[in-house]
Amino acid sequence: MKIDARLFDSLVADYQQRVDTALDHWLPPADVNPVRLHQAMRYAVLAPGKRVRPILVYATAAALGIDPQRVDGAACAVEIIHAYSLIHDDLPAMDDDDLRRGRPTCHREFDEATAILAGDSLQALAFYIISHDSAMTPDAAARLQMIEKLSLFSGSRGMAGGQAIDLAAVGKSLNIAELETMHIHKTGALIRTCIQLAALSTDALDDTQLQALDSYAKSIGLSFQVQDDILDVTGDTETLGKMQGADSARNKPTYPSIIGLQASQEKALDLHQNALQALSIFGEEADILRYISAWFVERRN
Amino acid sequence: MKIDARLFDSLVADYQQRVDTALDHWLPPADVNPVRLHQAMRYAVLAPGKRVRPILVYATAAALGIDPQRVDGAACAVEIIHAYSLIHDDLPAMDDDDLRRGRPTCHREFDEATAILAGDSLQALAFYIISHDSAMTPDAAARLQMIEKLSLFSGSRGMAGGQAIDLAAVGKSLNIAELETMHIHKTGALIRTCIQLAALSTDALDDTQLQALDSYAKSIGLSFQVQDDILDVTGDTETLGKMQGADSARNKPTYPSIIGLQASQEKALDLHQNALQALSIFGEEADILRYISAWFVERRN
Repeated sequence: MKIDARLFDSLVADYQQRVDTALDHWLPPADVNPVRLHQAMRYAVLAPGKRVRPILVYATAAALGIDPQRVDGAACAVEIIHAYSLIHDDLPAMDDDDLRRGRPTCHREFDEATAILAGDSLQALAFYIISHDSAMTPDAAARLQMIEKLSLFSGSRGMAGGQAIDLAAVGKSLNIAELETMHIHKTGALIRTCIQLAALSTDALDDTQLQALDSYAKSIGLSFQVQDDILDVTGDTETLGKMQGADSARNKPTYPSIIGLQASQEKALDLHQNALQALSIFGEEADILRYISAWFVERRN
Repeated sequence: MKIDARLFDSLVADYQQRVDTALDHWLPPADVNPVRLHQAMRYAVLAPGKRVRPILVYATAAALGIDPQRVDGAACAVEIIHAYSLIHDDLPAMDDDDLRRGRPTCHREFDEATAILAGDSLQALAFYIISHDSAMTPDAAARLQMIEKLSLFSGSRGMAGGQAIDLAAVGKSLNIAELETMHIHKTGALIRTCIQLAALSTDALDDTQLQALDSYAKSIGLSFQVQDDILDVTGDTETLGKMQGADSARNKPTYPSIIGLQASQEKALDLHQNALQALSIFGEEADILRYISAWFVERRN
């Protein structure tokens, strides 16, 4: 399909609405006990957000000709894992952030104990959805593989491990390889999972195609983070929905702080080129994935 | 099989050793990055403990004639979920405990951020094990059901929800029904899961047998907690491995504080009788489960 800005914006709006409806369905109702815990879970997940990870799931499904209904569960699972990680990362013992997605962080709106338990419960919910959602692929072995990927890439050897590396790096001087290792875990792993979960929803892909998609996912996973670091320098708080300069203020290593702003921007563009290269075996059906790679390095929030 | 104290102790020792070996296998090595996070995960899980939940898994498997190798993964998963919940429950924002299993709690030995991430990573690991362990039942649909049970019963409508109810109850006066609701979630749900995961490892059970096992599990899940409350009053810190009187000191509602010590002891014995009644459709192959029910209400730590 031929993608331009208008079509892309319309697709993104569709995907956002689609996943929000599905999230609302899977989240426990706010009037069911324990009420405060369920309110906190809904507050954190349903907060206005870009829904980047669900968009990636749906876009990959579109590129592969998979019915979106078959990946609603995967889209919800990755967004819920992302939301739980934000709740815990924002806690006083971690990044100690007050603002997230333009609103008070979960522990500021509720309390620390509720925020910890909301994160814990959301993680469990993500796995529940994949194990339970009968609209996903009926292939139980494929869904087990989805759970395997999601648990591996969100745990100590993926996202949570990346956050541990991140915390250990505060105030330290990292080289570019160390910074990259951190981001490959902290952000990249879950972004790779988005594409893998969508790909596991079909059995029509050969190994070459799977590897090409994973190579694409690795490139955009890193370019997303490079751009995040750039926006921490060049963005403004209102557009970002979080404190501009928060990382530099906390003396966290970032791409601009290590290689400078211009080299960071070049790095983001290089990664975009790598992503396009990885997709070269696909035809125009993958244009939406190409467009997303461009969006990642051109976004302003 | 005819169970007496000597045979039971020997079986328990076997199960404990068996699950510790399996846990050591599944936990990331302490010298793999991020090292501190992996050390914290191992510290919390491999701490000396009764391994009550794995014992329940193995005992149920023994009663049902299931090869223990098929439930190693389930035994590890429930123990790891239990360990993650202890790490998070002990945090300053929750129960603020310094001592657990006779050693400093995870956040005291490491730090709060590491403890939060260790708990998060352990939860992911539990689901990873069930999704990945090829020695478990090869029936992928059965393993999806295990993940469904474990995620449901450990999340906001199970264990984590019970902890939220528990925190909300501090300093409040609960009636006995409210206290029971709390414990059914906080402790009972995961204990039920132990028996269900073992039962899902075979397809030889009919609905009557499954319901009988679940009824047994509900009774012992509650009797375990009643006895815990009793020990908080009658035990001593050294035997318990945690602070005696911690619950009463924190003004937490307990069975003895609501119905008195003697009525609590009678309640535990009633639940034991219910558990035996539920098992009446099974023969002597279930004697180990009967023995466990007695152990739960007679234990001193």
